[in-house]
Amino acid sequence: MRIGIDAMGGDFAPQAVVAGVVSASKFLPAGVSVVLVGDQTQIESCLAKEGYSGDTIEIAHAGDVIVMNDHPAKAFQQKPDSSIVVGFGMLAKGEIDSFASAGNTGAMMVGTMFMIKTIEGILRPVISGPVPRVSSNVPISLLDSGLNADCKPEFLYQFGLLGSIYAKTLYGIENPKVALLNIGEEDEKGNILVKAAFDLMKYSKDYNFIGNIEGNDLLFEKADVVVCDGFTGNIVLKFLESLHPLSHKLGISQDYFGKFNYEIEGGTPVLGVNAPVLIGHGASKAEAIHSLVFSSIRIVEKDLVGKIKLAFK
Amino acid sequence: MRIGIDAMGGDFAPQAVVAGVVSASKFLPAGVSVVLVGDQTQIESCLAKEGYSGDTIEIAHAGDVIVMNDHPAKAFQQKPDSSIVVGFGMLAKGEIDSFASAGNTGAMMVGTMFMIKTIEGILRPVISGPVPRVSSNVPISLLDSGLNADCKPEFLYQFGLLGSIYAKTLYGIENPKVALLNIGEEDEKGNILVKAAFDLMKYSKDYNFIGNIEGNDLLFEKADVVVCDGFTGNIVLKFLESLHPLSHKLGISQDYFGKFNYEIEGGTPVLGVNAPVLIGHGASKAEAIHSLVFSSIRIVEKDLVGKIKLAFK
Repeated sequence: MRIGIDAMGGDFAPQAVVAGVVSASKFLPAGVSVVLVGDQTQIESCLAKEGYSGDTIEIAHAGDVIVMNDHPAKAFQQKPDSSIVVGFGMLAKGEIDSFASAGNTGAMMVGTMFMIKTIEGILRPVISGPVPRVSSNVPISLLDSGLNADCKPEFLYQFGLLGSIYAKTLYGIENPKVALLNIGEEDEKGNILVKAAFDLMKYSKDYNFIGNIEGNDLLFEKADVVVCDGFTGNIVLKFLESLHPLSHKLGISQDYFGKFNYEIEGGTPVLGVNAPVLIGHGASKAEAIHSLVFSSIRIVEKDLVGKIKLAFK
Repeated sequence: MRIGIDAMGGDFAPQAVVAGVVSASKFLPAGVSVVLVGDQTQIESCLAKEGYSGDTIEIAHAGDVIVMNDHPAKAFQQKPDSSIVVGFGMLAKGEIDSFASAGNTGAMMVGTMFMIKTIEGILRPVISGPVPRVSSNVPISLLDSGLNADCKPEFLYQFGLLGSIYAKTLYGIENPKVALLNIGEEDEKGNILVKAAFDLMKYSKDYNFIGNIEGNDLLFEKADVVVCDGFTGNIVLKFLESLHPLSHKLGISQDYFGKFNYEIEGGTPVLGVNAPVLIGHGASKAEAIHSLVFSSIRIVEKDLVGKIKLAFK
């Protein structure tokens, strides 16, 4: 198995990315290697700084970089030698089994849509964000956590299925409880979007829909998968992330708030596309990249993409 | 000044309501009385239980009750003797200076719209929810916190002005910083609604618009007033409220999480209507009702309605 990582992506690239990959390389299962995509000279220099001397990290040279404020679609076209474009080329050809970057999310989505493409039958790819539980280390999956700011009811219906497969495959939850995030528990509550989505979901035989939950139910673990549009999901998830620095500011050292640290998961897969693509956090440091490598491995190992394809056949 | 309180509204009415009002009566400024609207016999019995013997609490008899699962509009028409309908009648005639209830919110809104009416020029009334600050006890105002699940850009524009007047009048903030809750800080980010609202707000001369803020900025006090649609606002606010019981569950005793207790404010005024109407929390106990009385007094005293009327003249 070959895990592709964009060495040039993220606020602290390439050094933090290389450091994270070197850290991960010490724990790789047999037969797994990591391919760092990016500027060979820079990567070699970073590897030297980390004192790396193993044989599970490879380099795939890419001489250009798509930076954070590049226009995603234009940059993807105009920078064919960038690490993101080269990475997607390798993934499309099967030279790597997954591709992950903490760089320009827009460009990652352009690459995903143009070179990997949506699985037939899926209306919109989606990303899931982790909501920590008090009772265990298995997070609740909140999706869409930011890809689709404007949604149609049918998208939300499918997010329920994608989230259900994700929670079962990645977290081992049998028959995950899927809920719709709403402003009331009663059937007729919500905005226009959510009311229509509810009507689609309530008779679902594709997954275990348990109804509406409210904002105050989220942390109380009423559901395993929580569905919402990408605007709401992104606001809720970023708010959740802020509880970790907030707890520091308040001088609270409680294990639970440590779980709100995005570095634990390192990144999230784009659900509904033909190969494993993972989006990392722009502010990723070595710890987050370390996690991103293992998130990639888990997704390939458990054949998440294959299971989604099967469900939409 | 006569503060109207629905004695029959809320999960623990009438006893908790009467207990809260009795508790508040011990601290009323000179010239202020509270009018309890509801079943005279029941209220008298509750007052006796509380050992009340003062002369600042009056009773306005109403023989019927709109319960939580009554259909708001139908109940308002079919129960003319209910405490909510009687209360709105008194407010409309000027027999009380404000009316507050922890009962059926839908019926409160029907009463507000039919008997008190929206101030001319205001597209939609709105309610503001408090987001606690670490640095002080003056909350950030988040609005719409739940009245309008579906919004148009013009509504959001006006929420900015209403929130600005609210923060200045109630919390004494000069030239409040107004932000739009969004999924990115850049101008062009957001869903269709928020992008269009941003275009209206960015040239605002009506208030001090500072741009977009993200979910993780909310608790870090970047703005005094945060604008969003009522669906998003309700989810965020209910989520915030859950941090108080969560901190209990985790055994954290941190003053800050105590601020997430909705009982501190007791209720929130409907902004943009012709008289002070306050919506309390359905689960209000005596402490919340105590706060609701003083929130009502502050709003009448500071002439919040008059200031809003002036701004929309």
